[in-house]
Amino acid sequence: MNPGREILDRVAALGRHSDSPDHYTRTYLTPAHQAAARDIAQLMRDAGMQVRTDAVGSVIGRYEARSQGAKTLLMGSHYDSVRNGGKYDGVLGILVPIACVAELSARGERLPVAIEVVAFSDEEGARFQTGMLASRALIGRFERSTLEHRDADGVRLADAMRDAGFDPAKIDGPSVDLASLAAYVEVHIEQGPVLLEEGRALGVVTSIAAGIRNTMKVTGESGHAGTVPMPMRHDALAAAAEMIVAIEKRCKQGSTSSLVGTVGMLEVKNGTGNVIAGEVKFSVDIRAADAQTLSTAQRDVFAELDAIAKRRGVKLEGSRTHDVKPVPCTGWVQDRLAAAVERTLGGGPARRLPSGAGHDAMILAEVTDVGMMFVRCGAGGVSHNPAETVTAEDAAAARNALLDFLRTFEPKA
Amino acid sequence: MNPGREILDRVAALGRHSDSPDHYTRTYLTPAHQAAARDIAQLMRDAGMQVRTDAVGSVIGRYEARSQGAKTLLMGSHYDSVRNGGKYDGVLGILVPIACVAELSARGERLPVAIEVVAFSDEEGARFQTGMLASRALIGRFERSTLEHRDADGVRLADAMRDAGFDPAKIDGPSVDLASLAAYVEVHIEQGPVLLEEGRALGVVTSIAAGIRNTMKVTGESGHAGTVPMPMRHDALAAAAEMIVAIEKRCKQGSTSSLVGTVGMLEVKNGTGNVIAGEVKFSVDIRAADAQTLSTAQRDVFAELDAIAKRRGVKLEGSRTHDVKPVPCTGWVQDRLAAAVERTLGGGPARRLPSGAGHDAMILAEVTDVGMMFVRCGAGGVSHNPAETVTAEDAAAARNALLDFLRTFEPKA
Repeated sequence: MNPGREILDRVAALGRHSDSPDHYTRTYLTPAHQAAARDIAQLMRDAGMQVRTDAVGSVIGRYEARSQGAKTLLMGSHYDSVRNGGKYDGVLGILVPIACVAELSARGERLPVAIEVVAFSDEEGARFQTGMLASRALIGRFERSTLEHRDADGVRLADAMRDAGFDPAKIDGPSVDLASLAAYVEVHIEQGPVLLEEGRALGVVTSIAAGIRNTMKVTGESGHAGTVPMPMRHDALAAAAEMIVAIEKRCKQGSTSSLVGTVGMLEVKNGTGNVIAGEVKFSVDIRAADAQTLSTAQRDVFAELDAIAKRRGVKLEGSRTHDVKPVPCTGWVQDRLAAAVERTLGGGPARRLPSGAGHDAMILAEVTDVGMMFVRCGAGGVSHNPAETVTAEDAAAARNALLDFLRTFEPKA
Repeated sequence: MNPGREILDRVAALGRHSDSPDHYTRTYLTPAHQAAARDIAQLMRDAGMQVRTDAVGSVIGRYEARSQGAKTLLMGSHYDSVRNGGKYDGVLGILVPIACVAELSARGERLPVAIEVVAFSDEEGARFQTGMLASRALIGRFERSTLEHRDADGVRLADAMRDAGFDPAKIDGPSVDLASLAAYVEVHIEQGPVLLEEGRALGVVTSIAAGIRNTMKVTGESGHAGTVPMPMRHDALAAAAEMIVAIEKRCKQGSTSSLVGTVGMLEVKNGTGNVIAGEVKFSVDIRAADAQTLSTAQRDVFAELDAIAKRRGVKLEGSRTHDVKPVPCTGWVQDRLAAAVERTLGGGPARRLPSGAGHDAMILAEVTDVGMMFVRCGAGGVSHNPAETVTAEDAAAARNALLDFLRTFEPKA
């Protein structure tokens, strides 16, 4: 079978393990989640790997090196999903490396490095409002306070773990031999439209963006939509609207920049058509590939929001809900990935681009050199959405490029 | 007792008849609503009036003229409220005329016209999503289709009427002798800040504003907030924000204009902080004292919204939910009210101002000449809100001006 087609069939098969019959949602420790873990373990075994499961449910397959004492190249991504998500997000980064190992194994090829493929059990954290729980646990930096998180039904994470057969007391130390790691490489669907728009199947990630998210509250004066003259108003929604336009304008500056700014949530308190809004809340999400671009944009945006609030006589309050530092991908890993992509696709230098979304690679970067390969996202670049797609050709290209990367890989001296 | 204080005490007493123990909400045909009707009837009887209740529950008190065959001056307002509303809205326009009749009655004064004071049972229509049901019924233009409306609990209006002792079959023809009407005068809290800002207790309404309300839907493209570069976005919320700013800007043109434009409702479908909004709905409410100002503004606003949508590559759809023609107050009634206000307050010409909100007077204008007197609204002009207030001094001024108006009233020849 065409290797791309096979990867897509496996994506579809894993996608049937869902918490809901209506859409693809697979959250930490549910029956669907555990069924997916069993299937992944089987795929790893079929590919010739030794399989173990760590204390938080991540599935790790190992393919030994040519010789003992070799370094280990770690690859992987996550098998949980957001609610009503796309089936490629995470899963592609598990299945592509498995397909590569299967090919090596079928041909009896051993490399100068051992390969470990990890399927992280929880990256999105949709059920317990966690974030990258499994990759933190893998490197021995599990945050025990998350054991007290509860899902929407009030179930404690610690209890859900026990029910699924995991003992929280056993989460202790890294699940891989950190000293032996040569690098960590993650294949991931782009989740954006850049490769699609440029007609490229693959890209190499330069940096995982820094980002901040704030929740802003604008307090104006409510009033009757028919009776308060325009000059007397302190309309919280009109103020928020002007702020949103200002955020967009600032983040559009420099069209080649990695800078993005998004207001995705806005709520009008008791909003109705014939009442001037008295209170509006909205989110501000700003990201950039480097800390400098982010901090300058952030400073400009919040200064402008304050100026708008002052001019309009409304009160503006904000609280920070996220603050993530940028994680650059390691130069030599980028270069090796780029070379493999160039040999696979032809047509000149590989497209290098920042990742606006966060990935497990951010956590692995704390202990080893990291790189990421992006695979073109169809359907206009939508992700975290049932419309998310990858073509069989692009999946095959990803597998071929990764296989090339593996066959030519040499650990840094 | 000071006549203003007495009116305020009665407002407070009626305000205790509420559907909720927590706030003032009095909707059509509830026990609280019927208790308020009984209290109003008693106040009318105490003021020397003959009281009847019409087929939809409006309470009508009649104070005979000096001689038989005289014309009738009708005054009144409504005793239902919006949810969590203000206690003066509507009720003031019932209690001020009752206070005037009580004064005439106490002194044995009879006028060349009979006086009828009507307490409309349903103007806001909060329970059954009706509008001015009672004033329509009063003039014989009850819309029978509203009998099929259901409240939030699924109760049909027709059944609620029967349960409250009203027979829908008996709604037939006007509840007042239309041929004898000399005029209709409504006293109402301004529900806006104009009189408050200008330091005036009373105003005379020139016109009840025309208005339209549309619900707009912007469809853009959802996407990951971190991964879609700014130039590739079709952000539905950013588009809506630019539209809101444009609506405000256009409606601010000409600061002395009656024109007002409000976006009071905005909803982001599945809005979350890290997702570019794919669909946004918002309301557009535009009002003006005259049809020409409204239609010009409306044309400009919707042309601008279309242009914004086109430029941003988002889809814009709109549906009209309200369309109300302007109702000018009759010149001679305005002039007589203004003269009475001027004699009562001193300090030169009475402030004449449009009403941005709709009132029962709009319906009565279909059958007789109408006028309205506004009473200053405290607390920054807020209305439809528990913070709505009127001072005892202003209530006394309203009563004194209306009494002056009555004593000098002569029907148009």
